[in-house]
Amino acid sequence: MRYSQLFGQTIRQAPKDETTANARLLVQAGYVDKLMAGVYSYLPLGLRTLDAIADIVREEMDATGGQEVRLPMLHPKANWVATGGWDAIDILFHVPSRTGREYALGSSEEEVAAPLALARLQTVADLPLAIYQIGWKFRDELRSKSGLMRGREFLMCDMYSFHADQADFDRHYATMKDAYLRVFRRLGLTAKVTEASGGAFSDKISYEFMVVTDAGEDDILFCPACDWCVNVEIATVAAGAPCPICHDATLRAARASEVGNVFDLGEKYSRAFERPVRGASGGTVYPIMGCFGIGISRVMGVLAEICHDDRGLVWPAAVAPARVHLATLGSDAAVVAAGEDLYRQLASALGDRQVLWDDRSVSAGVKLADADLIGLPLRVVVSARTLAGGEAEVKSRDAADARRVPLSDVVSGLPGQVAR
Amino acid sequence: MRYSQLFGQTIRQAPKDETTANARLLVQAGYVDKLMAGVYSYLPLGLRTLDAIADIVREEMDATGGQEVRLPMLHPKANWVATGGWDAIDILFHVPSRTGREYALGSSEEEVAAPLALARLQTVADLPLAIYQIGWKFRDELRSKSGLMRGREFLMCDMYSFHADQADFDRHYATMKDAYLRVFRRLGLTAKVTEASGGAFSDKISYEFMVVTDAGEDDILFCPACDWCVNVEIATVAAGAPCPICHDATLRAARASEVGNVFDLGEKYSRAFERPVRGASGGTVYPIMGCFGIGISRVMGVLAEICHDDRGLVWPAAVAPARVHLATLGSDAAVVAAGEDLYRQLASALGDRQVLWDDRSVSAGVKLADADLIGLPLRVVVSARTLAGGEAEVKSRDAADARRVPLSDVVSGLPGQVAR
Repeated sequence: MRYSQLFGQTIRQAPKDETTANARLLVQAGYVDKLMAGVYSYLPLGLRTLDAIADIVREEMDATGGQEVRLPMLHPKANWVATGGWDAIDILFHVPSRTGREYALGSSEEEVAAPLALARLQTVADLPLAIYQIGWKFRDELRSKSGLMRGREFLMCDMYSFHADQADFDRHYATMKDAYLRVFRRLGLTAKVTEASGGAFSDKISYEFMVVTDAGEDDILFCPACDWCVNVEIATVAAGAPCPICHDATLRAARASEVGNVFDLGEKYSRAFERPVRGASGGTVYPIMGCFGIGISRVMGVLAEICHDDRGLVWPAAVAPARVHLATLGSDAAVVAAGEDLYRQLASALGDRQVLWDDRSVSAGVKLADADLIGLPLRVVVSARTLAGGEAEVKSRDAADARRVPLSDVVSGLPGQVAR
Repeated sequence: MRYSQLFGQTIRQAPKDETTANARLLVQAGYVDKLMAGVYSYLPLGLRTLDAIADIVREEMDATGGQEVRLPMLHPKANWVATGGWDAIDILFHVPSRTGREYALGSSEEEVAAPLALARLQTVADLPLAIYQIGWKFRDELRSKSGLMRGREFLMCDMYSFHADQADFDRHYATMKDAYLRVFRRLGLTAKVTEASGGAFSDKISYEFMVVTDAGEDDILFCPACDWCVNVEIATVAAGAPCPICHDATLRAARASEVGNVFDLGEKYSRAFERPVRGASGGTVYPIMGCFGIGISRVMGVLAEICHDDRGLVWPAAVAPARVHLATLGSDAAVVAAGEDLYRQLASALGDRQVLWDDRSVSAGVKLADADLIGLPLRVVVSARTLAGGEAEVKSRDAADARRVPLSDVVSGLPGQVAR
C-alpha cells in the first residue's frame, strides 16, 4: 500500500490530552483516533493490529475446543435483575427505550451466555461445553485516562464454559491457562498468573494474567523464573522472599496490567436462571460456569506500552500492521523507479498489505522519523546514495545499525520473521 | 466438524413467537437464538454465514479503494446535537452515564465518520476519500417482528465518502453501484435499484437496492429486464407500463426488502462540523459526503427468506456455513467406519470446517430431516444399503433426486461450487 493514499497518517505534534505512552504513540502514529475518553476509532493500520491480535486469540481458543459465537450487546434488563447485576454493577450502562423497556449494555456476557447455553444442555452427558466470542463491551467508567488500556468501549475475547463438577472446571482451567500463556508468548508478551478476589463476579477465587509494565494499574510480586505472581492486595509474602512455587528465584515488586482473567463462577448462574441438567443417575445437577477473558484492545495498548522507544513504536512481527516499511528518499526519477520496482517485488513476495511504501513528497528526515514512529519490523530505504552502489539500506526497527544490501538481494535476504 | 459436538443443534418444534420464515428457519436450524425481539445471538453455524457475507462485502469494498476502519458505537451527545439528529431521529438510543454525561448509541456513523475524516483532509487535493467499516448498530424500534430483517441490533457495512464536487460523488456512486450489484450477484440475489426520499438523512435523493421477496416491507415496481425499480411511494408509472429505462419489458409490482442504500448527503456534515478544506485556487470548499450501506445481518435474513423450501434452508454455496453434510445412517460398525473414512477424505480435501458430519445416534428420519433443515449445498449419505454396493448417496440440496457414487469417487466427483 502507498502511504500517500493511506487514511490515518502520522500527526506532527503528540496529542496533548493523552497521558499514557500507548495512547500518545497510537494516536500520533495514526493507528487510532480518540472520539472521547475511553472510546477510540481504529484507523486502517490500527484495525490491522487489532485484527492480528484477535486472530491469534481465536486460533488458540479454537485449539482448546471452544466454539465461536456472537452474543448481543443490548441485553434485556430481566437477565441482569435475575443475577443481581442490574443494581450491583456500577459500571453497567442502563439504556432506556421509547418502548418503555430498559436494556443493559453488556459489560460482560454471563447474563446472555448462561441462559443461551444452559437451555441447550439436557444432561451431564452434554457437558462440558465452551463457547466464546470476540466482541465489544461497554463500561460506564468514572475516569478513563489510560488510552486503550481502560476503555469505556473495548474489544474482548470472552469464553464461557459449563461443567458437571469442580474437577472438570479445574481440568479446563489448566487447558486454558496453557492456551492463554501461549497467546501471550505469540504476542511477544511475558505473562504471569496471579490469584485475586473474584470481585462482583463471584465469591470464589479468580485468576489474573498480568504483564509487567509501568503503565499498569496493579501492584504485583512476581517470580522472574516461573509463571507465578501475586497481587499485593492479597499477598502474604514480600519482595525478596523466595518464590513459593518454583523456589528458583526471589520475588520482585512491579506494576502490571491485567491482560486476561478467569472467574470460577460456581453454580451462581445456573441457579440464578434456574437451569439444572439431569444427573447421570437421575436427580439434577447445577452446572459450574467459568468465564475466561482476554482484553484484545487492552492488549494492543499494553503492547504499545512495552514495545516502543523514544522514537516510536516497535511492533513484534506477529501484530505489526505490515512487515516492511519502504521509504524512497528524494524525488530523483531513478530513485522513484527503483523504489517502485522494489515495492512490486516485496508486494509480490509478501502480499501488498505487508508492504507500506512511503511515496510522499516530503523530506528524508520526515520519512525516517515517521518510519520509526509507525514501527514496522523492517525498514528498507532507497536513496540516490544507496542507488549509486545498486543497493538499498535495510534496518530492523529494533536494531541499532542499518546494512547495505544489493537491490536484487533485498527480497531473498528478508529476515525469517518478516519473510514468512 | 462433528454434529454431535456442535453448539446450536436443530430444534424439533418451530419457535412459536417468530412470524417470518427467516427467523423461524434460522432459529429452528440452530443458526441464531432470539434474546429478545430484534436482538439475536449467532451460534457457530450462523456466525459462519454472517462472516461469509461480510467477507464478500469486504472484498468488494476493498476493490473500490475503500479503506476499512472501525468506528465506535458509543458516541458523544455533542456530535448528534451538531447535526440535529439528537432530537430528530426517533430510533436513536440515548444512553445516560453516572458521570452526568449522555451518549448516543450509533444508529449510523455519519456523526463520527465525518469529523474523523474531515479533520484529516486539508485541501481538495486530499479528495476523494472513502472509508468503511463492518460494525454493529442499534435502533430503538417500536416493533421488531421480521427476524434478522429489522433488528434493534444489526450488522452493517457502511462506507462514508468525501468529494470535492458533485461530479466526483456521481463518479463514485457509479463505481459503488457496480460494486453493490456484484456483491448481491455473488450472494445469489437479484437486486434492483430504486430512487426514494433521503428521509431524515438528507434533502437530496437517495438510492435503494431492493431484493424482491414477499417478506419485504416495501412495495416496488421493477423491470424484469434491467436493474431499475421504483418505490411505489414516489412512482409516477404503474405496473404494466413499459420500463422507462431499458424499454425492453413491462413493469411488475412486488414486495421487496431494502438490502442496501446510498445517501447523497451534500454539504450537510462538512457544514454541521464546520470542516471546509482549502480549494485548488484558494478559498474554501465544503466537501460533499456520501453514505453507502449494506445490511449484513439483514441480507442473511433476506437470503433465508428467498433460499428455502418447505423442508428447510437451501443456502447458496457462497454463504453456506459448510459445503458438505455427511450423514451416516444406523449404528452398524461398518457404516460408521466408512463414514469416518469419508469424513477424513472430505475434510482433507475441503478443510474440516467445510464438512459437517452428523455422527449422532438418532434415527435416519431425524438425520435426513435435519440435513434438509440446515440446508448445506451437498448431502452425502452412507448407510448399510449404500455400503452394500460400496457406494454413498449424493444429493444437492436443491436437486430432486439423489445419485449413487462409489465411495472412492465421492471426493473427486464433488460438483464445482462445492469443490472449490
